[in-house]
Amino acid sequence: MWRAIIIVKYKEGILDPEAKTIHHALGTLGYHVVTDLTTGKYFEVEIDGSLSRAEAEKVVQEISSKILSNPVVQRFTYELTEDKA
Amino acid sequence: MWRAIIIVKYKEGILDPEAKTIHHALGTLGYHVVTDLTTGKYFEVEIDGSLSRAEAEKVVQEISSKILSNPVVQRFTYELTEDKA
Repeated sequence: MWRAIIIVKYKEGILDPEAKTIHHALGTLGYHVVTDLTTGKYFEVEIDGSLSRAEAEKVVQEISSKILSNPVVQRFTYELTEDKA
Repeated sequence: MWRAIIIVKYKEGILDPEAKTIHHALGTLGYHVVTDLTTGKYFEVEIDGSLSRAEAEKVVQEISSKILSNPVVQRFTYELTEDKA
């Protein structure tokens, strides 16, 4: 089985209102030591182990760019590992 | 400066409707090789570098459990690194 961890973040310069709200709330609660905060989405995906690494990687790239992220305002990174358990 | 990467996931057994919806959509689009999918939130937090590691770690644990997650249904993991740049 292949296991992919995919992180989707906003591109540089794109407004992240959720992060702004959380950062403000942290200040209100006294956590002024938090100087910056950004948010993103996290996905753990399991893929059929009969695929080759290249095939699994193609699936991860396709679903990340087409379904899990919006390439106009977001970018994704991933790690693909083989889970033999 | 301290930099923390915090991942918030649903606890085992907690329904994850977003993951279910995405997994279903992937099947509809022909990605039947995706056998499981779970979602989570990703946060990158910068913390004042004048704090000790223990102090920074305390801040990360507090904000993760009080603000970034709901401990009833979610759990968090984090990595704290020192960024000397």
